[in-house]
This record gives sequence, C-alpha cells and structure tokens, in this order.
Amino acid sequence: MPAPDHAILFEPVRIGPVTAPNRFYQVPHCTGMGYRYPRSEAAHRKVKAAGGWGVVSMQEAEIHPTSDITPANESRIWDDSDIPALRLMTEAVHEHGSLAAIQLVHNGLHAANRYSRRLPLAPSAAPVDCDDPVNARAMDKADIAEFRRWHVDAARRSKAAGFDIVYVYAGHDMTLLQHFLLHRHNHRTDEYGGSLENRMRLFREVIADTRDAIGDSCAIAVRLAVEELLGDEGMRHDVEAREVIEALAEEPDLWDVNMADWANDSQTSRFAKEGYQEPYTEFVKSVTSKPVVGVGRYTSPDTMVRLVRQGRLDLIGAARPSIADPYLPRKIEEDRLEEIRECIGCNICVSGDNTSVPMRCTQNPTVGEEWRRNWHPEIVTRAREAQPYLVIGGGPAALEAACVLVKGGNDVIVAEAGDHWGGRVTRESALPGLAEWARVRDWRMWQLQQVQNAELYLNSPLGADDVLAYGIAHVAIATGSHWRADGAGRAHRRPLDFLEAGPLMTPDAVMQGALSADDATGPVVIFDDDRFYLASVLAELAVATGREVIFVTPSPVVAPWSERTLEQRRIQTRLIDLGVEIATGHKLAGRDADTLSIACVYSGKVRRVACATLIPVTARLPDDALWTALAARREEWRDAGIASVTRIGECLAPGLIAAAVHSGHAYAREAMGEGDAVLREDRHTDL
Amino acid sequence: MPAPDHAILFEPVRIGPVTAPNRFYQVPHCTGMGYRYPRSEAAHRKVKAAGGWGVVSMQEAEIHPTSDITPANESRIWDDSDIPALRLMTEAVHEHGSLAAIQLVHNGLHAANRYSRRLPLAPSAAPVDCDDPVNARAMDKADIAEFRRWHVDAARRSKAAGFDIVYVYAGHDMTLLQHFLLHRHNHRTDEYGGSLENRMRLFREVIADTRDAIGDSCAIAVRLAVEELLGDEGMRHDVEAREVIEALAEEPDLWDVNMADWANDSQTSRFAKEGYQEPYTEFVKSVTSKPVVGVGRYTSPDTMVRLVRQGRLDLIGAARPSIADPYLPRKIEEDRLEEIRECIGCNICVSGDNTSVPMRCTQNPTVGEEWRRNWHPEIVTRAREAQPYLVIGGGPAALEAACVLVKGGNDVIVAEAGDHWGGRVTRESALPGLAEWARVRDWRMWQLQQVQNAELYLNSPLGADDVLAYGIAHVAIATGSHWRADGAGRAHRRPLDFLEAGPLMTPDAVMQGALSADDATGPVVIFDDDRFYLASVLAELAVATGREVIFVTPSPVVAPWSERTLEQRRIQTRLIDLGVEIATGHKLAGRDADTLSIACVYSGKVRRVACATLIPVTARLPDDALWTALAARREEWRDAGIASVTRIGECLAPGLIAAAVHSGHAYAREAMGEGDAVLREDRHTDL
Repeated sequence: MPAPDHAILFEPVRIGPVTAPNRFYQVPHCTGMGYRYPRSEAAHRKVKAAGGWGVVSMQEAEIHPTSDITPANESRIWDDSDIPALRLMTEAVHEHGSLAAIQLVHNGLHAANRYSRRLPLAPSAAPVDCDDPVNARAMDKADIAEFRRWHVDAARRSKAAGFDIVYVYAGHDMTLLQHFLLHRHNHRTDEYGGSLENRMRLFREVIADTRDAIGDSCAIAVRLAVEELLGDEGMRHDVEAREVIEALAEEPDLWDVNMADWANDSQTSRFAKEGYQEPYTEFVKSVTSKPVVGVGRYTSPDTMVRLVRQGRLDLIGAARPSIADPYLPRKIEEDRLEEIRECIGCNICVSGDNTSVPMRCTQNPTVGEEWRRNWHPEIVTRAREAQPYLVIGGGPAALEAACVLVKGGNDVIVAEAGDHWGGRVTRESALPGLAEWARVRDWRMWQLQQVQNAELYLNSPLGADDVLAYGIAHVAIATGSHWRADGAGRAHRRPLDFLEAGPLMTPDAVMQGALSADDATGPVVIFDDDRFYLASVLAELAVATGREVIFVTPSPVVAPWSERTLEQRRIQTRLIDLGVEIATGHKLAGRDADTLSIACVYSGKVRRVACATLIPVTARLPDDALWTALAARREEWRDAGIASVTRIGECLAPGLIAAAVHSGHAYAREAMGEGDAVLREDRHTDL
Repeated sequence: MPAPDHAILFEPVRIGPVTAPNRFYQVPHCTGMGYRYPRSEAAHRKVKAAGGWGVVSMQEAEIHPTSDITPANESRIWDDSDIPALRLMTEAVHEHGSLAAIQLVHNGLHAANRYSRRLPLAPSAAPVDCDDPVNARAMDKADIAEFRRWHVDAARRSKAAGFDIVYVYAGHDMTLLQHFLLHRHNHRTDEYGGSLENRMRLFREVIADTRDAIGDSCAIAVRLAVEELLGDEGMRHDVEAREVIEALAEEPDLWDVNMADWANDSQTSRFAKEGYQEPYTEFVKSVTSKPVVGVGRYTSPDTMVRLVRQGRLDLIGAARPSIADPYLPRKIEEDRLEEIRECIGCNICVSGDNTSVPMRCTQNPTVGEEWRRNWHPEIVTRAREAQPYLVIGGGPAALEAACVLVKGGNDVIVAEAGDHWGGRVTRESALPGLAEWARVRDWRMWQLQQVQNAELYLNSPLGADDVLAYGIAHVAIATGSHWRADGAGRAHRRPLDFLEAGPLMTPDAVMQGALSADDATGPVVIFDDDRFYLASVLAELAVATGREVIFVTPSPVVAPWSERTLEQRRIQTRLIDLGVEIATGHKLAGRDADTLSIACVYSGKVRRVACATLIPVTARLPDDALWTALAARREEWRDAGIASVTRIGECLAPGLIAAAVHSGHAYAREAMGEGDAVLREDRHTDL
C-alpha cells in the first residue's frame, strides 16, 4: 500500500477511450534499440510495465522512408511488415495491465535520408538540420495530402499492432508538424503559412485525421514543445504555445508538453534540477480540460503529489527516471521509498541513442541487457550454492558487485583501503554541479546496510599476502584507476618529457584539494585531452579560486564527447561566461617555469601561454598492483582456498561510471552462473 | 582485345596457391553495406568481377566482439553463423572467374565496442582513438594467445566461406596488429614491445598462424601501411617500414602496401593526383620476391602499364576507380578506353561508410543500388516502346538522364539555356583543385556524342509556351539551383535584412568571375553556413586576388562535413597556410558599409570584422520557375501531347552532384518502367 499522501498517484486517469491505471506515465523516449533490436526494445518496455508505469511508450516511429535518420535506431512503421515487431512491445506491456503508446513521426528537415536517398520534406525549401549536404524540398499540396495519408496509415497500423495511445508529435525541433508550426522554418505564403492559425493548420488536420481513423478505440495524444529558449526565434510558452493550446485545447485526448530542443528537454543534473520544466508547462492545465503530462526528471513522490494537487499535471511523465528505476511506481505503491534508484541526470542513456547503439544507464546496469542477457533490474536468481566473496575496493564496481552478490544469497566482505565509500563517485560528486551523482553510492550503500550477509570495512588496504591469508573463495579486485601525470592520451600517445618543468597537478590531486591549497597566483592551465566533462568541471573549480584559467584542448570544441550527453553547448557557454580563456585545436609543445608552449593541431604553429599550474586531464591508468601481485602467485591460490580472482571496473580499464557499475554487475551475475550476451541484432524475418 | 601496349595488364599473376587472372586488383574497401546488407554487398562485388577485376576483396571483417565499431557496417566473421552471408559474395565473384579476398581485422584501440560493451584491446593501456570515454586494456600473454586463436578461427571460416585470399591487416592506424607495430601505441616491455623486432613479433606470428591454418589452399596477403606522414611519430616508408618488409619479405604470398591513416590513403583529387602513393611504395618490390599491389587512384591504363614495366607494382590496386567504373578492366581489355568512367576523387563514396550507410558514387549512380534496385552500371534494359523525351537543362542530372534514356533506345532532345554543358560541374571544376570533377560532364557528353538518338542544343532557353508548343511526350526539367544571397541557411533560418548594407557577392557571381573583376581592395569575408567544400575553395580563389580573406562560420571547424570525405584537416590547414583569418563558432549579427558584426554561437558576444565584400555561402534554392509555370497549366498538357513533366536534380532540391546524377538516373530508369528500391536491411536469418 502506498503511504496515504501518495495514494493520489495511483488513481486511474481517463484518456479518451482508454484509462491509465495510475498517474505514472513513461513518455516516448529513444533507447537506441528501435527497429534493429525489437526484442530488446520490447523487453526493456516490459520491465517498465512490470514496475508499475501505467502508460509505457515506444520511441518515435518513422512513418515513411522520406523520414530516415539512419544510422539511428528508432522504431519504424513504414508498412504492415513492421507490425509484428511493434506487437512484441504492446503484448509485453499489456501483460502487466499498462497502456502502450506509440509516437508517430515524420522528421521533416531533421532527416537527411542517408539510407533511403529520398528527398527530405519541409514546409519551405531549406537545408536539413545536420551538416549533410542535403536540402529538404518545400511540400506542395499533393505532398501535404500524401503526408496526411501516411500518418493515417501509420495510425491504423498502430491500432493493429495493439497500441492504446497514438501520438501526433510536434516536438524537439525534429518533426515536420513542428516545422510547420515554427515561423523560422515555415516561410509559406499559402494557407499553411503566415499566421499562427495557418501554421497550425496541418497540425490540426493531422490530429483530426488520426481521430477519424482510430479515435474510437485509441486515445490521441499530442506532444508539443511549448518552449525552445530561443526568444522570438522560437516557440515561447507564454506567447505562441499558449495560443496553439488554446486553439486546439479539446482536440486531442491528452497533452504531453515539454521543452525543445532535446538538449533543453533532457537537461542534465549539472545544469538543471528536478522540476526544471515546470515554469514552462504549468500553464497548460489552465487552458485545456484534457489530461496533461509533463516531465522534469521527477524522482520524488512528494513532488509528484504536489504537481497533481496543485493542478500542474495529471500524469507524471518520466523518461530518465523510468530508465534508472523501472520499478519506481511499484516502490512508491509499496511504500519502499528508500529503494528507489534515482536517476542521477548524467545522460549516459542519451549517449546510447546518440551513438546508435542500445542505451546504457549509470544507475541501472540492466538497461539494454533485459533481452540479450536476460538481466532484470530487480530480480537476481539466488545462487544454487551460496559462496563467500571478498570484494576489494569501495567504488561503483565494488558496490554494485556486492549488491548483486548479496541479493543472490552469498556472503560478501567489502574492503575499502580508504576512509570513504564510493570511490570516484564520491570524489566527483563533490565537484561543481555533480552532487546528484552521489546517488550511485548512496543507493548501493543503503542496500548493503539493510542485509545480514554483507560486511563492510573502511581503512582496510589489502596486499597479496592478506588476500592469500584470508583465503576467501572468490576475490573481486576493484581497486580503481588514477589520472596520468605525463600528458599521454589521444593527442600525445607517448608520455611528454617536459611537463614537469613547472608545477603540475593531476585531476586526482585537484579533487583532493590541491588547487585550493595552492600558493601560486598565476594562471592555471587545464589541458583537456579526455574530451568529456571532467576538465570543464575542474575549470569551474579553478575559476572559483580567483585565478586566471586557460583551457587548452586538441579538440575543436570544449568537451566534444558531451555532445552525446547534450551538454556541450552549455559547458562551453558556461566556461566563456566564467571568463575562462579557451584555446581549442592545440596540443602541448613545450614548457618552462612559467610558460607553456602549445601547437596548432593543423598548422603546427606554436604559441606560448602563461602557466603557473598545469592540470593535464588526458587519460587514466588502472590501479592493478594488487592484481599483478596475485597473478604472479597464481600457483598459491588453490592452497589458500581461492578459486577465482577477477578484476572488475576501472582496475581492468578506466571508463564511464556506468561501465564500472556494469562491470560489477556482470561479474556478479556471471559468478553465479549466468551466461553471456546475445551479440546479434535481433531483427529477423521470422517475427 | 586490348591494345598491344596494354596486354601486359592481362597477364595472370600467381599469388601463393592461387592465380589471379589478370593484374586488376580491387583491394579491400568499405562500402557501408557490410553485415547489415550482405545481399547488397555481394551484388556490388559481383559487378566488379563481371567487369574484369581479377581479384575482388570484401571490406574489413571483424573477427570478434571485442572489435566492434558499431554503428559502422563492416563485415563480420565472429562465428560460423556469419559464413552464409560471406558466401553470397564469394559465389558471386567466382561466377565471373575472379578471386575473392577477405580482410580479417581486429580493430584494437580503434574500436570503442559501443554495442558489445566489451573492453577494447591494445598493446598498452590507452584511450580509444575516437572521443568515447573508453580505454583499451593492455593485453597480457593469455589475451595474445586468445587473439591469435580468434584470427585462426576467422581464417578457417574464411576458407569455408570460399575465399581465395585471406588478409593479415596492419593498416590505416585502425588495427591491433598495426598498434603493436607502432612505438607510439606499443609501450610494452616484454618480448612484444621495445625493439622493432619485438613489435613485429605478433604480426609475424599471426602471418604464420594463418598460413598454418589455411595456407595450403588460400593465399595469405598482408596489408601494411608503409607511411603515415607523421615523421618520427609514425611509420616511415624509408625507415621502419622497410625494415618490417625486409624482415618478413617472404612470409606472406602478397604484399598490399599503402599509406595511413585513411585520410592519407584515400586522398581526394583536390589534394593529390593519380599515383600519389608511388613515392612511398615503390621500394617494396626491391625488398621482396612476392607480388606487390598498391593503389593511387589509377584510372589511366598507360600509367598502369608503366608501373608494371618499371617494376613498381605487380598488381594494380584500386578501390575508388573500381567504384566509379566496375568495368574499367573490361573496357581496357576491349580497347574501349573512352568509355572508362573515371573516378573524380571526390570521396563521396567514403562519406557513405563514414555515415554508416551504403555508399554512393558521383560518377556511378548504380553503386549501392545493385541489389536493392537491380541497377547495373553498364546495362539498361531497352524500353519496350521507345518514347520521345525532352530534357531541359545541361547539368549532371540532365546529362545522366539523357545517357540512360538514349541507352534504353529512346529519342532524346537535350536543351540547355546557357552556352556550355555541365551546369554546376563546369562552374565548379574551374575552381582551385576541382578540375577532375569535369569528368562527370565529359564522360556523359562523350556518350551522348556517339549516338544517333540524342540531339543536343545549347543556348536554348525554353518557356512553358515552348514546351507546350513542342509537345514532346515526356519532359524532364533539370533547371538547377542558385545560391541564396540573403544569408538564410542553417544558423539563420530566415533571411537576414542587413546583408545588403555593403557589397555582397553570391557564390554564383564569384564563379562567374565577379571577384577577379571587383575593384574593392579591402577584406573579403566569406560566411560559410554550407559547411562542405565550396566556401573553402572560394577562400582559395579570394586569396589569389591578393586581398585579405576572413572566413566566418558557425561551425567549430572549417568545412565540418568534409570530415566525411576525409578532407577536413587538409582544408583547414590549407586556409591557415594561405593566411586566411578563421573565425569559427560565429553567426552574422549586423553589417554597415565596411564592417560586419559577428556573434559567438555560445555566448552571443559580438565582435566586428572589417568587410569590403561579403560572400555568403549558406544555401541554395531550386530554379523551378519553368516547373511552376508548367504545373499551373497542367490541364493543357494532354492536348499538347505531353504525358509527363518531371523535375529532376537540383530544381527539385539542391544537394550533392552525386545526388543530381542519381536523380537523373532514377528518373530515366523509372520512366522506362523499373521499380522502386527495396528499403530494408537485407540481413535475415534465412541466409
């Protein structure tokens, strides 16, 4: 039973001809699985339904080959042959009593049609929105009629595939219907362009078409981006968005409202806190009588209740929180709030879709593995024979492995050499903007503290002699990694011999407080060859010391891989706003006491920058001394009673926190006898 | 019969246990098809065999899930279940008497393993070579043994799949074996690192393993990058490469030698002319008695003969020339030299693989369509009933459509309004570095000039009245496109109202000579929002006038899409070397008579740059006035005797030259009754 305060979240909500069993609504989100991995996709959605999400949505489904964003793995509903793959998902969702939703899409000028080689379509002739040398053509009346027909056909197929809710989608600056709505894309002079009334004509027609086609049994949802943060260049929630919703208020059965583009919709915890969309979407309920769903990385049941009670939302939308914890609704329903595995807002999930592979999750390592490895986020099969484990280390890989092993009924000792749990998660969550990342540690520590079969020891460094003396059957080494001080990384594949000509701090030293303890007053130079978030966070930290900060990177932008997590623009803008001097496209060329020489990656031209303290953020190396020592004494293992010694996490290879968690999880499952992944795309004609 | 001078090219060449029927060798190259499109891949290779290539190679085939470069579509040979898809290719190639080759690969630290989530492998711990936050782990002895086993297993499967030649691959800075060879990647201190002898140990072992496994019936080829253009940081042809080949001279049955990385191997005609690899590879024949194959975008039979006679190569390697003309060998053999459709060196083929889709070719629009549309590069089925066609325009779409229609037996009139053939191809091939692009026009004009059923008219502008008066049954409108003068494009989705505050030239005007005729002496500012090659070429042209040139772009680099064609680094370096001032990451914000205001795309901060002449290179618009006029009089068509009027090429939507050629080709095939493409990936379990 939910706590009485939370009961309101479990009221059913009528959505046109269907009824959601509760207010938990997994809005459409990409998974990187889509049409190439339909069994994986279905298994992922099934777990959400099992976990209590009243509505579970598919990602966008392309309705026609003129909307082809290959190599991305979205869903497809081009013709009837796509129905069987989609039906896998609806059947899986219905099995648990939830509603299944599908978001039909034509990507308009967002699609370069690389695979289909068809010409993209748009309200007006324009280049597509990626850099491809491709132009969309302006649709004439016949094109518009055809597009409407495609959408109706796709809606009928959606019904045939078993969907309960069918979307008409105008969001993320990625859809033809939104392109018609926006004056920057729609330069037409006919009845589909000009006034807002004209620009929303096609949207209105398609909503009506869809209702006429399937509205008797399926709910018609509309997804509309109500704010783009572009000022007058875009849709503003307090200007045109309000007019659109007023004009179409009662046309759909449901309003799903959010921000565009995707980087505004899915902001990370570094840049936005829970509920960040509320100021932009709260007006919608006052304009329509239809149910409204919105998102904002909600993980707190109290916040959800407030949103419903205050009349801001009828349904609590979620993408990322449902990925981090597919069982979030059920845990609220059963008043097991401490067990909620909260999203940390890191957007590693997004990076999966952005690299066209099944997504991962930092908090939930079973994501993307539900079908191919048969991993369940809540269920661990108990080991047939419980075994004793010694896990050495206290970072994310160690804690995750311990959690899974304990759940499997094994006895686990966790020994951390230092004086705190969490390893790099603890270090990094103390940095500007990354506080929510501590949830990776906190959720696991809470789990381990509830059980009888885990023993946790801090300040317990172990050597090979210790491990052999203890003789615990299974040993997992999770001793982590450290940042290189020698400049080696991508741009410089070998160590540089000149770095020590002046003061140097590794990122580890900075995270231990070296920068704030530094006596120097001259410029801090950060050399970033890591290319993700850390160097930019350290730059923020350095700015806070009051010193001049220069950011040098061989990349053309600051933190290029953060484009995958939708953060790049915000990161570079923040550094500029903080007054950081940025030198992109430069490698290191030399150093003396107070200057650094940097060389243009194109021309080789060298310039000198003042440098009192250098922080090279280039690459990490495994801390594998314990492994090496034990491996050298392998012949002693058996006599010591040791059956296996295994490296997990970063002492094997440094990477994402998500990879460390995944490594710990995989180790534990495999140790208990689970098999390997199916590494084939699962799209077959036999569906 | 070949011309006597060319007969040497048709001598058979013994390669270990097999014999190539001639000296034409299609080296391994990517197609963007690979494991997801095996029927497409096989059909593409089959056409090469039919066209006379004595050896036809598959692209690289990944031997294990630890070498996973998803989303790229390479070949896979992970286990026996991959054999049927590969056998499609060998059977197709054998049908025409050619040898089939496969290039086995482990990508080492070039693979981020996004899909498999396995840890990448490398000689030493290091970040992978893309920006992914992933590190390869250093292989221990057990890993090395396992890798050798994978390679042997893959070699055995290759034999089972019917391949005649199996590669051991150390090239492109993309393979584990090369990573071991290179001192910048190999920091080992055991017998696999340190001296060159040690660094080549694994390479030697794998060559021997492969020979032991399958050398009785398959030839063992080695692909080695002999020059990286990195000075002492990399492999130099005159230092370590020579030592490697001396040490292993007689180990393989064939040496396939080239430059690395890929951007050096596949240089475009803008930066390198036919034979550019010869200075780096010519030494190889003097070091080994085994046959040697090399590449250099060879399309000239005389050059090929010289290479053989001078003892530089035994086999003429080709990737791009075999794509542009799969029948190149046969045309030499039959002494039909004028019919050779020469590669223009634009690397649009490469862009296909680089965007993970089946590749295209500017010269050969049937590439990637061999299976899915059943298009053949040489064969056009004659129309059941010949029809009269009027093709209006003289650019690439018009000329290609005319060629195909004429081949199908139709009567074709081509009417060009201007005084030259080739449209944009003629304009652009006059620009610095692009001369070879004229081959697109020249090949087609030659074809049309040989036949009786084509009439060609220059200086023949046609209006709707003319078209209706002529009453030719089928009308193709190919009137092209023009560059916008209003600044609208990607960064500015609507026209800018301030551009005309000072002198402005469109790219069309510049190509007509406006810049050299310009009286102004102040700075030329090029604003590039097109993001491919043209703006950078115009910058070269502007530099040649002696004026200061400033290059402004919203992108973080110059010509970002040219990364897809492997040209980006060379383009930006060239502009820097020419003294062009580059302002990346800036949009247009305002203009007065002699200055332009540009705004940082991150911070919005505005700076002013001197500007005497502005060249906005942003986007193009279709020249579709004739279409619009005819469409408005559709009810008169029938009485005039017109059955169809169709837009093709850029008057429908501007894009690549390759897209215009493809559009013209598709129009002609479809007009003669051929069907639509199969738009499904063709990887099915039923193989």
